[in-house]
Amino acid sequence: MSFTEKLAAHASRVQSLLDAYMSFEADTAVSQAMRYAVQGGKGFRGFLVMESTAMFGIDPERAIWPAAAIEAMHAYSLVHDDLPCMDDDTLRRGRPTVHVKWDEATAVLAGDALQTVAFDLLANMREDAEVRVRLISDLARSSGAEGMVLGQAQDIAAETAETPLTLGEITALQRNKTGALIEWSCAVGPIYVGAVQVNLRRYARALGLAFQIADDILDVEGDSKAVGKRLRKDGDAGKATFVSLLGLEGAKARAAELVAEAEASLEPYGDRAGTLREAARFVISRRM
Amino acid sequence: MSFTEKLAAHASRVQSLLDAYMSFEADTAVSQAMRYAVQGGKGFRGFLVMESTAMFGIDPERAIWPAAAIEAMHAYSLVHDDLPCMDDDTLRRGRPTVHVKWDEATAVLAGDALQTVAFDLLANMREDAEVRVRLISDLARSSGAEGMVLGQAQDIAAETAETPLTLGEITALQRNKTGALIEWSCAVGPIYVGAVQVNLRRYARALGLAFQIADDILDVEGDSKAVGKRLRKDGDAGKATFVSLLGLEGAKARAAELVAEAEASLEPYGDRAGTLREAARFVISRRM
Repeated sequence: MSFTEKLAAHASRVQSLLDAYMSFEADTAVSQAMRYAVQGGKGFRGFLVMESTAMFGIDPERAIWPAAAIEAMHAYSLVHDDLPCMDDDTLRRGRPTVHVKWDEATAVLAGDALQTVAFDLLANMREDAEVRVRLISDLARSSGAEGMVLGQAQDIAAETAETPLTLGEITALQRNKTGALIEWSCAVGPIYVGAVQVNLRRYARALGLAFQIADDILDVEGDSKAVGKRLRKDGDAGKATFVSLLGLEGAKARAAELVAEAEASLEPYGDRAGTLREAARFVISRRM
Repeated sequence: MSFTEKLAAHASRVQSLLDAYMSFEADTAVSQAMRYAVQGGKGFRGFLVMESTAMFGIDPERAIWPAAAIEAMHAYSLVHDDLPCMDDDTLRRGRPTVHVKWDEATAVLAGDALQTVAFDLLANMREDAEVRVRLISDLARSSGAEGMVLGQAQDIAAETAETPLTLGEITALQRNKTGALIEWSCAVGPIYVGAVQVNLRRYARALGLAFQIADDILDVEGDSKAVGKRLRKDGDAGKATFVSLLGLEGAKARAAELVAEAEASLEPYGDRAGTLREAARFVISRRM
C-alpha cells in the first residue's frame, strides 16, 4: 500500500466514526454544517494518531477514537478561521466554506459544537479513564489559549503590527497555530502505553514546522484548484512567511532539513517507524 | 447569610479559581478578553453546582472545580451569542460586549478558548478519573449539537421562520438553550457520589424554564441599567416569547407554578435542600 493509499484508508475509517457520531436526531443547519466541515480533508492529524499508536502495537479500533477527535477539533478550527472576521476565506477543501454555504451564525455554532464532539469522543472511548482525562487535558491545552488559539491570536496581531514578524516569531506562532495539534496527535501513542514522549514530540515539532513551510511554498507555487483553497493571499497581504523571509529556495532547504530532523528523531523506534518516516517526506512533497 | 450573600460568596470563590487558571504566560487580547468575559456575572450556574454538591456533603474545595468549569462554558456561550452575526448585542453585565471592547476575531477566539478551559478544569480536578470523564462527557453533550448549541440553532431558525414559535416549541428551544447547562449544574452532586439524578434533574428543568420565563418578563418590565444588557429587543423583533404567548400575568403565573414544581422535586432531600429551594424562589424574584 502506498503512503497516500494508507492516508486515504485511515481517513475513511475516521470519517465513518465521525459520521456515526454526528448522526443527531435533530437535523438542523448546524448539524449539517458540522458533517460537511469534517469531510474532504486529507485526515493528516488523524493519520498521525493512527500511526503513532500502531507503533506501540495498539489496535486501530482503539486508535480511531482519538483520531476522530483530533479531526473534529481541526475541522472546528478551520470553520472559525475561515470566518469573515478572521481569514475571510470562501474556499476550503475545494468547496465553499461553511459561512458561505450557510451563514456566519451557523459557522460559529457548528465550530463550537465540533469542539464538544472532540472532547466527547475522548471521554467515551474504551480506554482506562486515566488515559482519557490525560488526553482530554492535553488536547484542551494544545487547542486553547496557550496552544492553537494563541497561535491564531498571534497571527491576527501580526496583521496589524508595524513591523513584519521575524523568523523566530513566525516559528513560535506556527508551533502554536498548526504545531500544537500535530504534536498532540503524535503523543497519543506514548500516552496510551505510558511511554516517554520526548522523541515523538521532537518528531512532531519538526514535522509540524516542515508542514507549515510546505504550506507557504504551496501558497506561492501551488495550483489553487488542486490545493482546494485560495492561494497567494499571504504575498498579496504583504504578510511575512517562511518564503518571504528565506526565499523560495531557502524555504525548501529549511523544510528538507526539518524532514531530516524528524526522521532522525524516529531512530529509537527502528523499522516500526517506517510509515511516520514516509509521513515526514510526504509533507514536503505534497501538491495539495 | 441571605441568599444573595451566599450567591456572591460562591461567585467570588469561583472567580478566584478562574483567575488563577487563566493567568497565562502570554498576555494577548484573547487572554484579556477571556478573563473579562468571566467577570461580573451572578454565577448562578456555579452556585447550583456548589449547592447540589453541598447537599451530598461534598467539600466546597472539591465542588469549585466543576463550578468554575460551568461558568467558563457559560461565559463562552455569551461571548459568541453576543456576536454581530448572532444576537448582535453591545452590552452585557453592564459593560461593552467582548467584540465591542476588542473586535470580532478576538471574541470568536476568546469563546473558543474558554470552552477548552471548561474541559481542562474538569479533566484536572482531584476526583476519581471515572467521575471526571463522566462530567466531561455530560457537559460536552449538554453544550453541544443536541444541547445548548441546538437551542441556539433553533433560536436563529425561529428568526427567519414564517410562523412564530408555539409554546411547545419555545419550551423545547429554551430547555436546550439555557436549560441544558442548568441541568448539568444540578446533576454534578449526584454524579460525584453516584446517586440517582432524577429528582435533581426534574428540579433543574423546572428551574431552568422558570429562569427563562423570568428573563422574558425582565425583558418587558426590567430596567436595562440594573439588568446590564439591552432589553425590549424580543418585542421589537416581533419574536415569540413566553410573555407574548401567555401575556405578562400568564407568564408570571406559569413561572410561579414552575417554582412550586421545582420545590416539590426537592422533597426527598428534606432540609438539606433549603438553599436550592431559595434558589428556585430567587429566579422569579430577581430584578437583574
